[in-house]
Amino acid sequence: MSILASLDGPAALRDLGRDELRQLCAELRTTIIETVAHTGGHLGSSLGVVELTVVLHRLLESPKDKIVWDTGHQAYPHKLLTGRLDRFGTLRQLGGVGGFPRRSESEHDVFDGGHAGTGLSIAEGLAVAREARGSGETIAVVVGDAALMTGISLEALNDIGHRQIPMLIVLNDNEMSISPTVGALSAYLSRIKLSRTWRGSKRVYDDAVQRIPVVGPTALELSRRLRKSVVNFAQPGQLFEDLGITYVGPVPGHDLGALETTFRRVLVRMDGPVIVHVRTQKGRGYRPAEADRIGFHGAALPPMTVLSGANGTSGNGQMTAGNGTGQAATDGTGGGDGARRQTIEGTPVARIAVPGNAPTAPAAARQAVAPNQMPSGAASEGDAVPSAAQAAAAKRKPPNYTSVVASELIEIAREDGRVVAITAGMPTGTGLSKFQAAFPDRMYDVGIAEQHALTLATGLAIGGLRPFVAIYSTFLQRAFDQTVHDVCQNDQPVVIGVDRAGLVGEDGTSHQGMFTIPAQRQLPNLIVASPKDEQEARRLVRTAFAQPHPFALHYPRDPGFDLPAVEPALIEVGRGEQLRTGDDILIVGFGPIVMRGMAVAELLAHDGWSVAVVNARFAKPLDRELIETAARGKQLVVTLEESVVTGGFGSAVLEALAEAGLADPSLREVPVKTIGLPGDRFIDHGAVTDLRRVARLDVDGLLKQVHEALEALAPALPARPHARAG
Amino acid sequence: MSILASLDGPAALRDLGRDELRQLCAELRTTIIETVAHTGGHLGSSLGVVELTVVLHRLLESPKDKIVWDTGHQAYPHKLLTGRLDRFGTLRQLGGVGGFPRRSESEHDVFDGGHAGTGLSIAEGLAVAREARGSGETIAVVVGDAALMTGISLEALNDIGHRQIPMLIVLNDNEMSISPTVGALSAYLSRIKLSRTWRGSKRVYDDAVQRIPVVGPTALELSRRLRKSVVNFAQPGQLFEDLGITYVGPVPGHDLGALETTFRRVLVRMDGPVIVHVRTQKGRGYRPAEADRIGFHGAALPPMTVLSGANGTSGNGQMTAGNGTGQAATDGTGGGDGARRQTIEGTPVARIAVPGNAPTAPAAARQAVAPNQMPSGAASEGDAVPSAAQAAAAKRKPPNYTSVVASELIEIAREDGRVVAITAGMPTGTGLSKFQAAFPDRMYDVGIAEQHALTLATGLAIGGLRPFVAIYSTFLQRAFDQTVHDVCQNDQPVVIGVDRAGLVGEDGTSHQGMFTIPAQRQLPNLIVASPKDEQEARRLVRTAFAQPHPFALHYPRDPGFDLPAVEPALIEVGRGEQLRTGDDILIVGFGPIVMRGMAVAELLAHDGWSVAVVNARFAKPLDRELIETAARGKQLVVTLEESVVTGGFGSAVLEALAEAGLADPSLREVPVKTIGLPGDRFIDHGAVTDLRRVARLDVDGLLKQVHEALEALAPALPARPHARAG
Repeated sequence: MSILASLDGPAALRDLGRDELRQLCAELRTTIIETVAHTGGHLGSSLGVVELTVVLHRLLESPKDKIVWDTGHQAYPHKLLTGRLDRFGTLRQLGGVGGFPRRSESEHDVFDGGHAGTGLSIAEGLAVAREARGSGETIAVVVGDAALMTGISLEALNDIGHRQIPMLIVLNDNEMSISPTVGALSAYLSRIKLSRTWRGSKRVYDDAVQRIPVVGPTALELSRRLRKSVVNFAQPGQLFEDLGITYVGPVPGHDLGALETTFRRVLVRMDGPVIVHVRTQKGRGYRPAEADRIGFHGAALPPMTVLSGANGTSGNGQMTAGNGTGQAATDGTGGGDGARRQTIEGTPVARIAVPGNAPTAPAAARQAVAPNQMPSGAASEGDAVPSAAQAAAAKRKPPNYTSVVASELIEIAREDGRVVAITAGMPTGTGLSKFQAAFPDRMYDVGIAEQHALTLATGLAIGGLRPFVAIYSTFLQRAFDQTVHDVCQNDQPVVIGVDRAGLVGEDGTSHQGMFTIPAQRQLPNLIVASPKDEQEARRLVRTAFAQPHPFALHYPRDPGFDLPAVEPALIEVGRGEQLRTGDDILIVGFGPIVMRGMAVAELLAHDGWSVAVVNARFAKPLDRELIETAARGKQLVVTLEESVVTGGFGSAVLEALAEAGLADPSLREVPVKTIGLPGDRFIDHGAVTDLRRVARLDVDGLLKQVHEALEALAPALPARPHARAG
Repeated sequence: MSILASLDGPAALRDLGRDELRQLCAELRTTIIETVAHTGGHLGSSLGVVELTVVLHRLLESPKDKIVWDTGHQAYPHKLLTGRLDRFGTLRQLGGVGGFPRRSESEHDVFDGGHAGTGLSIAEGLAVAREARGSGETIAVVVGDAALMTGISLEALNDIGHRQIPMLIVLNDNEMSISPTVGALSAYLSRIKLSRTWRGSKRVYDDAVQRIPVVGPTALELSRRLRKSVVNFAQPGQLFEDLGITYVGPVPGHDLGALETTFRRVLVRMDGPVIVHVRTQKGRGYRPAEADRIGFHGAALPPMTVLSGANGTSGNGQMTAGNGTGQAATDGTGGGDGARRQTIEGTPVARIAVPGNAPTAPAAARQAVAPNQMPSGAASEGDAVPSAAQAAAAKRKPPNYTSVVASELIEIAREDGRVVAITAGMPTGTGLSKFQAAFPDRMYDVGIAEQHALTLATGLAIGGLRPFVAIYSTFLQRAFDQTVHDVCQNDQPVVIGVDRAGLVGEDGTSHQGMFTIPAQRQLPNLIVASPKDEQEARRLVRTAFAQPHPFALHYPRDPGFDLPAVEPALIEVGRGEQLRTGDDILIVGFGPIVMRGMAVAELLAHDGWSVAVVNARFAKPLDRELIETAARGKQLVVTLEESVVTGGFGSAVLEALAEAGLADPSLREVPVKTIGLPGDRFIDHGAVTDLRRVARLDVDGLLKQVHEALEALAPALPARPHARAG
């Protein structure tokens, strides 16, 4: 039995000797690497904090003491030490262990996270609450060097230094966010590490200072201050001290002895906030990840590892753990409906039905959307490590939207020297590293600072440039005010690439791109668009740069449909397109879900319904004329979006029809079924395929929802539809 | 002719001698004080930067060179120097000069602002764009010490220090935001100012260091570094230098000579980012404001000043300038509809019609809503200085919502020791200073850090406390992600006081509370409520603290209706109330606009319509049962909200009716008119009264909108309504 498997909670760590601790660290690494090979996940970050996690859990008494994991992607060792070893094979799978701390999983998980930089505030809150209660627990927070530079972290530091409430801040400095950390604070941390050798010379300084002649009180004071100044210089981290936070470090982060000695001393004497600067190596203990730290934040594991995992021979059995829909689903074969999935399997490189070329049989309709239903490993650079099956699948995938958008951006930038690009610490994930390679001087990586990214873009636009800002939908929530107050209030032609719009999969609750459409749809001056496929994405990028207004282009994490390249002609803003005509039902959708709507229309047509389909393209301004015309006289209108349905695209259609319906009773009487993600709950982790199935946004689920709406309407409908298209 | 009036643009400043400049500064102060006495506005901030503004415009060549005013409330001297003297009497009035820089007003206004902390990012953007273009203009930004501590500013500093692009950052340090600046950085700035005397002793240090024995290269290097360290110590601002930004200062901010010398030197040699730390005095030159710097960020000017202004005898004639609806409107007498306004005037302390006690005549109905239509000076502490008329009116105003909510909070806190309060730098504006006086240990002012405020609250709630966070609707946009990711994802019982929900008036475009309902309504776990009057506000505060979920309570800047206190009984979450029954029309509203809906119902009843009114209380969860029951069979349903109509409360009603309408054709056929603020444009500054009139959200405007909807419906309606209530 391994040491890891023998541990009964983190308290048991205190009984282990040094050799056993080392063995435990090795076991943690093996378990993490082997699991991530199957499930995908955040490999490098977790490997970097193995020793740190072991030492913190050895010295602190969780759950009485609180350990806050900022962002939370580095919490795998924490999860393995706190009762989740048996289920760890279900990591990031539907119903399995989440990729971030989750309060529902364990009393050792302090808060549900996922976005960078909130840990300091959470920890301060816990520390303030502790003082209010008069209880004596220790509050610790582990924050990465990149997350430390987010606005919210800096705001928190300012407040923590002000309040002076004891708490332990562990600065996990691996010099990386997903890409290398940028910014002046990062450079400062580097200088601290370089100057470390000066600490040993403190005594020499003291001697030198003592030789300064002492003549009169002024010189005395001078001498005292000089000495303090020298000590400050010899003691790096003065910047933190200036903010009222005691600085200790840097400490080698993979040295169990040094970590334990340092933390033990700090914890005994902590009478205010203390920051312990720990120097770690991302991907530590896994050579490929050590060597390629960007890739192994999120890239496929190499074939050898993949194979050893895929054979089910390695590790501690977590391959078969879980709820049966876990890792099996990631290659598109496991899970419930075997027959349907086999159909998908039989379509190695599925092609979506393009307008005017729709297949007519149900099987073909289901096939048509296979790429959209499959896990999208190819799009995951910058996110997390995809599983072996995902990686293999990626090899035969068409380019994803992220990549198509970046390529088109590069084309536009070749023609227009004003075009620049901004990323908030994710050049690879947003596909902008390609842009950076082409135009190194026209790319700005501002670090994890979405707020700054949007306002900087506003300034660049005011200054005459044409900025493209690519940010994941979920992280764009951080820049909501900047979108309102800077971009839109100033009506600047900033193009916002809203990447990962819709379900993102295994990263789970905190990462789904589902709250951006309602937030943006209300904003004056902003145009909100989404393409039905990757060729339309190209056209909309062109269209965006042709506007004198801000433009939010939403595109998903999915691969495209492998459509042949077309000339990216401009699209008139606010103009949708009718993909299919019909008399009974209108399906109108926003984004790539439109193509699933086409498949649903095909299936409905097979049952005798005459179905029209409209690709809205714009949620704002909405093509009211087209939608009203298409809706008139229908027995049912169905709206589709892969975003929260409350206040979203579907509501835009309701608003338009209600307004037109005031003067047009025939329009008013048309029943509308809005379909999207539910507004009453968050969507947890799992493969996108599984999430779409559970949320009933895959073709089968959409079809069922349309049938339910038709059944509700039944008393008001003819008993049988006219079998016009059957 | 005054010097100010004789200036033809900022370039003319270069021709003035020192005495003339001093005279100009005095004229600027007089103009600002006299204008603000009538119009209201940000007095102290602008008085503090008079000399700074004169010197910057003297040395820089605006509009070629760019001066960015962070937040922008301090830009009155800038506006007066750049062509807006003639119209300055219209400050903050409908159609007049805005209270913040506005690109539509002048080529000297670089961007439209209003929220703190975005200036550094804007300026960096301009500087980057300049480098890209290869043009040579100077970019300067003036940022206050409080705004510097916002997350976005700190993120920007980190990036500016990293990029090393030349730009001038003027730190306008008046030690105040609206209240005294808090936080560790503020303490650091104070220490800099205290240590200033050490700068003169630099030579002494150099001498001392030279006496350190030089033995071998190690000691040589030691000596060199020691010297650098000593110089650093003698040169305060090392924290900024550590971030890569050259620090100069502190400079006395009201000394024209010192300012000019310093900036001249900096501008000549600027080869990277430079921060000039200018020490200013808020309210400088106006004794009452100097003495009470909190109050004079936003409180009434004293009677003497008021009277001299009201007589129209003082100043340079700006009293009569403007578009005729300007300052006259602020006392409720000027402007168009004299008859109606006289009616309002005749109601010194108007009382709103309470349910079951509705007056039946049109005049009474109009009277009933007078308080809501009047400018709400009483609620403006912490905002801006109200005009004399506003201040006088405030004396006879009932308590505003802010005050009622704070009082109830204090009651609850007396009973429950877990209750704590958080403000983001606005203890007075949010009414929480009363709470602070009662419970000094249970109040947290985190400075202008809305993001941190929400996440801190999450931490406090996880730690077992019951936090109340009061933030203006517009500033809550800053914490959208924290609301989603921390508060809601963790489902913590954080009570968010969404103050200034709806139109806020003279602060204008950037401050209207109109984008929060659609953003919040989509969020899982969050309850979204708003009271119809101040007594219901009390009840909803109680209700909020009784929930195990996050709760957003929206309340306006308006005064209440002076209702007698009632026992604040709990309200069932998701339960609206029917205020009035009727058969023809249903009016359903969210927030205090419901009472205007009651007045509209009365007026409609007078014309023979039978009108039902529902107070929704909750936008989420919506009382679907009540609304569906009340809507069934109506000829028209009207929704009311003082927030953007796109995706807002009205859309919630549309969504509910659409869903219920699938199975219930009678419900489906009911036409719905959603009324709120338009989603296609921002709302500029002006008195709330005027804005409501322009947006047609006052009683007359609402009535007109209902009539228009009825006319659109006319073909489908009986020619005349049954004169049931007439």
